[in-house]
Amino acid sequence: MPAAAIILAAGLGTRMRSALPKAMHPVAGRPMINHLLAACEPVFERIVVVVGPGMLTLERAVAPHATVVQAERLGTGHAARQAAPLLRDFPGDVAVLYADNPLIETPTIERLVRRRAGPEGVGLALLAMRPQDPGRYGRVLQDAAGDVARIVEWADASEAERAVGLCNAGVVCAPAGDLCRWLDAIGNDNAKGEYYLTDIVGLAVADGRRVVAEEAAEAELAGANSRAELAGLEAGMQARLRAAAMAGGATLTAPETVFLAWDTRLGQDVSIGPNVVFGPGVTVEDGVEIRAFSHLEGCVVRSGAIIGPFARLRPGTEVGSAAHVGNFVELKAASLAEGAKVNHLSYLGDVTVGAHSNIGAGTITCNYDGMNKHRTTIGTGAFIGSDTALVAPVRVGDRALVAAGSVITEDVPDDALAIARGRQATKAGRGFRGKQAGGRKA
Amino acid sequence: MPAAAIILAAGLGTRMRSALPKAMHPVAGRPMINHLLAACEPVFERIVVVVGPGMLTLERAVAPHATVVQAERLGTGHAARQAAPLLRDFPGDVAVLYADNPLIETPTIERLVRRRAGPEGVGLALLAMRPQDPGRYGRVLQDAAGDVARIVEWADASEAERAVGLCNAGVVCAPAGDLCRWLDAIGNDNAKGEYYLTDIVGLAVADGRRVVAEEAAEAELAGANSRAELAGLEAGMQARLRAAAMAGGATLTAPETVFLAWDTRLGQDVSIGPNVVFGPGVTVEDGVEIRAFSHLEGCVVRSGAIIGPFARLRPGTEVGSAAHVGNFVELKAASLAEGAKVNHLSYLGDVTVGAHSNIGAGTITCNYDGMNKHRTTIGTGAFIGSDTALVAPVRVGDRALVAAGSVITEDVPDDALAIARGRQATKAGRGFRGKQAGGRKA
Amino acid sequence: MPAAAIILAAGLGTRMRSALPKAMHPVAGRPMINHLLAACEPVFERIVVVVGPGMLTLERAVAPHATVVQAERLGTGHAARQAAPLLRDFPGDVAVLYADNPLIETPTIERLVRRRAGPEGVGLALLAMRPQDPGRYGRVLQDAAGDVARIVEWADASEAERAVGLCNAGVVCAPAGDLCRWLDAIGNDNAKGEYYLTDIVGLAVADGRRVVAEEAAEAELAGANSRAELAGLEAGMQARLRAAAMAGGATLTAPETVFLAWDTRLGQDVSIGPNVVFGPGVTVEDGVEIRAFSHLEGCVVRSGAIIGPFARLRPGTEVGSAAHVGNFVELKAASLAEGAKVNHLSYLGDVTVGAHSNIGAGTITCNYDGMNKHRTTIGTGAFIGSDTALVAPVRVGDRALVAAGSVITEDVPDDALAIARGRQATKAGRGFRGKQAGGRKA
Repeated sequence: MPAAAIILAAGLGTRMRSALPKAMHPVAGRPMINHLLAACEPVFERIVVVVGPGMLTLERAVAPHATVVQAERLGTGHAARQAAPLLRDFPGDVAVLYADNPLIETPTIERLVRRRAGPEGVGLALLAMRPQDPGRYGRVLQDAAGDVARIVEWADASEAERAVGLCNAGVVCAPAGDLCRWLDAIGNDNAKGEYYLTDIVGLAVADGRRVVAEEAAEAELAGANSRAELAGLEAGMQARLRAAAMAGGATLTAPETVFLAWDTRLGQDVSIGPNVVFGPGVTVEDGVEIRAFSHLEGCVVRSGAIIGPFARLRPGTEVGSAAHVGNFVELKAASLAEGAKVNHLSYLGDVTVGAHSNIGAGTITCNYDGMNKHRTTIGTGAFIGSDTALVAPVRVGDRALVAAGSVITEDVPDDALAIARGRQATKAGRGFRGKQAGGRKA
Repeated sequence: MPAAAIILAAGLGTRMRSALPKAMHPVAGRPMINHLLAACEPVFERIVVVVGPGMLTLERAVAPHATVVQAERLGTGHAARQAAPLLRDFPGDVAVLYADNPLIETPTIERLVRRRAGPEGVGLALLAMRPQDPGRYGRVLQDAAGDVARIVEWADASEAERAVGLCNAGVVCAPAGDLCRWLDAIGNDNAKGEYYLTDIVGLAVADGRRVVAEEAAEAELAGANSRAELAGLEAGMQARLRAAAMAGGATLTAPETVFLAWDTRLGQDVSIGPNVVFGPGVTVEDGVEIRAFSHLEGCVVRSGAIIGPFARLRPGTEVGSAAHVGNFVELKAASLAEGAKVNHLSYLGDVTVGAHSNIGAGTITCNYDGMNKHRTTIGTGAFIGSDTALVAPVRVGDRALVAAGSVITEDVPDDALAIARGRQATKAGRGFRGKQAGGRKA
Repeated sequence: MPAAAIILAAGLGTRMRSALPKAMHPVAGRPMINHLLAACEPVFERIVVVVGPGMLTLERAVAPHATVVQAERLGTGHAARQAAPLLRDFPGDVAVLYADNPLIETPTIERLVRRRAGPEGVGLALLAMRPQDPGRYGRVLQDAAGDVARIVEWADASEAERAVGLCNAGVVCAPAGDLCRWLDAIGNDNAKGEYYLTDIVGLAVADGRRVVAEEAAEAELAGANSRAELAGLEAGMQARLRAAAMAGGATLTAPETVFLAWDTRLGQDVSIGPNVVFGPGVTVEDGVEIRAFSHLEGCVVRSGAIIGPFARLRPGTEVGSAAHVGNFVELKAASLAEGAKVNHLSYLGDVTVGAHSNIGAGTITCNYDGMNKHRTTIGTGAFIGSDTALVAPVRVGDRALVAAGSVITEDVPDDALAIARGRQATKAGRGFRGKQAGGRKA
């Protein structure tokens, strides 16, 4: 049976104290909403996202999925109801999920949907969990057969009911027509005057439908109403990513200090030292060593390369096989061929470096003239002496040699030597002691 | 009723194996004693700190509070007694606290003082806690009415007494006259021949006074007798500071890797990546992004600025609104106006940079001549080419342009171009292969 | 009685997904096998390491200890049996240990050996532990006298047997002749068709020997079959090293962020900030301050020096007493005398710096000419202006002064001034606006 989803993403998260919609706060380098969408897309034919007024970045982030705006904040039931006009005639089931549940996984969503549509004759399926500390979650009360009899909110629960470990995660699934009818029927006769999605459980039971709870791991259903809880989601996602990286054959000396992005790809026998941070878009091939204090985003590191410590690889960078990138080196849109080396205090921006070339310490590419970026090309087997500035656009040829301390403004042909620096003058007796006595500028 | 405090700070902390007085060991960038003083100052009219002989840095750190020297180390009772001559006639209560309790908070101290002076007719109030692991703490034994009957040291306690969860934190409060009389009466007839402050509990009871235990959180009353316990205090303080930062609207991607100072101020929607270290004196305004591996001390970062990764901001620095400070950049006493950019491998010391100026990669201010520091001034809308040295004192004018690789020793007028570098010479056939065959120096 | 050891190190650790033998994976900067060997060497006269085919790096790592090759992977009993020919006639006890137990300590091994050879008349002693989560470990079943009756594997254990907390750690010790006879007698009549070392317990009991379990801490007996478990071993070792450093009088602000090597030596009143990484071979003397984000390998830091933040000290470096090494500074085979300073963005490779010399920001030694490394020597009391390149081999004399921005290719005599930079030309009206209108390269 086809299924559709309503994702509730209109929350501002007042306790986050943020101008950013809650759903846009990132986890592992990707907005929470996009984590949830990625988990939902394999399951649902259609997804409608309920956003708040003026949340344009969120609308863009969820495209091409449809969005509807919840103009007033009148509760989760009211939010879901905004999507009903688009799904009332949907020929299948509709699930309701929450944008701040970025850790939920596809198989869990599939289990919920299959449970509803399966042979058990279930009218409404919901996700439930058994948290270590059930705290103030609503409790799921079951009848003798194990079906859900009702959900009781913590505030209304008796001591005996609070002792129940099974808690409501809020995620539900029901046939489109039923769900939309129940959404319409939810009232707001309560202390806050809000419409609560949870009320559809009572409506379903009143309609004589079987309601069942599909259990899922607490870790998948964690949400975030504060920055501290957001940090908790990040920690949960990082734990998952680190475990997967290690299972895949990467050594993380101190996994708790390695921060992966949602899409980081690590090969086998990759070794990652303490304190390494990955932004999105990084692929690391087999046998690469990434040393402590490295920071990588949007780059490819080919097999056997050595990176860091203290290396920064920025987007558009490709480090060739067995190449070395050392400390205090920044690469941006830099392509290093096999075996190239840039080991010390250098900035290579918009650069192509040929195979086995050596870039000396303190090399700076002057790629920006204040208006445009220009490219520097270095051939194969070239040797760039230390403390050199390469003023782009410029080309240094194959096997060319640039003398240390040069400022290179003109192309250097293959096999040529270029030198561009001042001549040394030495003046006896004018050393540091003389300076202390008289002169000042040096 | 007025209150005064005696703070015991004479300990060397033998197990710390340190030449520094224990009270001077820092937590979150401030000596422990100063944390305690800050918590005490709102409560007490007068504070007397008991120091050890020769602890001059400690005496300076507690100024303008009075200090008395405990010449011999004869126990906590003996230490407190050194302060008695200054407080015997104090017209109110006197509390005794410990310099290695930096996590105690003002409201807790207030509760203790109010409990003593309140309507209950209490003669001596003490702070007690219920530690997760009571270990070897002295146990607080209460009578049927809940009053303290006596304190029993762990070594002297029966099995039943050891099973008591309420433990003595050592902090006490009593009327000045009573306290001083009890301090005088403490004996040293025990295994170590020391005078124990705890003994005043027995003296108070013997005097027919009501003794009560005011309970406080274990986390506030943690002390440190070793470097490992000092690290525990640091962790406790960091947890508190991180929680406050997040509650205030800052995102800490990985809070456990962010180290805040006691006085760090973070605005709303500040985003802080993994592995960021704050020294004292940092103010970060709203909407600032501080990327991984940044280190800030004594600086102001204005709204919307972007810092790091791998940025070092040293004291006296101000980063203007929407300015950018990038990787491997050190700023010291540097003032960057709005929208200025210094993105790569630069050292700016004693510098003023005008609005929207761009400082190229590898720019170095030569601010020190071996004797004095000199200032560099860069105007608005200027462009400093990469790999430039600015020999201070020097001024680069508004909209001026400095060619890459220059060593600037003379002022550059507004709208002028300055260039100061060697001319390039290119010699065919003398490239890297030729070099391998013959020459050596490049 | 003399004792010998068989160490089983043939495992590839399939679940590690690594081309490296499991025993060669490093913990705290040293292969696991070398940790175990260091713990074993004080106890055993002779050590035989069982390796897999083609594990040449492992064979080299264990030299001069003997190795035997287990050609087929037929279980632990089969592995141990490979060493029997070398130890059958050994006049004493033989213990069997595992290469992936790097946390085991010498006193524990001594206890096992003494237990076997002691006055109790023990025929076979084994190490056992009481893990927090016994999980799938084999359980040690004891008779009424406390002797080991048998080991039951988890898969074969009844509920009652699984409830036993005492687990088999696999390490055994017995007289050489008995052990070798039992090894020969182990069969492979089981599901996997493998020979299990554990079976010798049953053989010893059948021989009427007393078998006893010597208990040891779970932390010492942890092994690693996956990268995640390897990270667990690293964490365990780091916890041990950090505790020892703090007990010795070093302050670790955030111990959980400091990564020590197995041989790191730290003096008293050493202060280490957050996020510091030590490779092997580092000695830090008393009173040194190592600030955040520093990375040290193979170096000596003399008393009172200040390192970092963001400093990289590479092998062969010695930082003199009270010397300063600042941010974004890399030292390699660099010897800094007392009071020398290199505070900002510099690379000093193959360098000797005299006492109290000051190395300006952005100083680069050009020590590599593409074929060889050359040395730079700087005298005492010299002043190297900022942004200077020193082209080695070169010598700057005592009290010499090098002007900022120079490229020094010739020796500078004592007390001389050297300057080697382009002359500044300033052109009015050709500033950044003019540039925007016309020119391009700067």
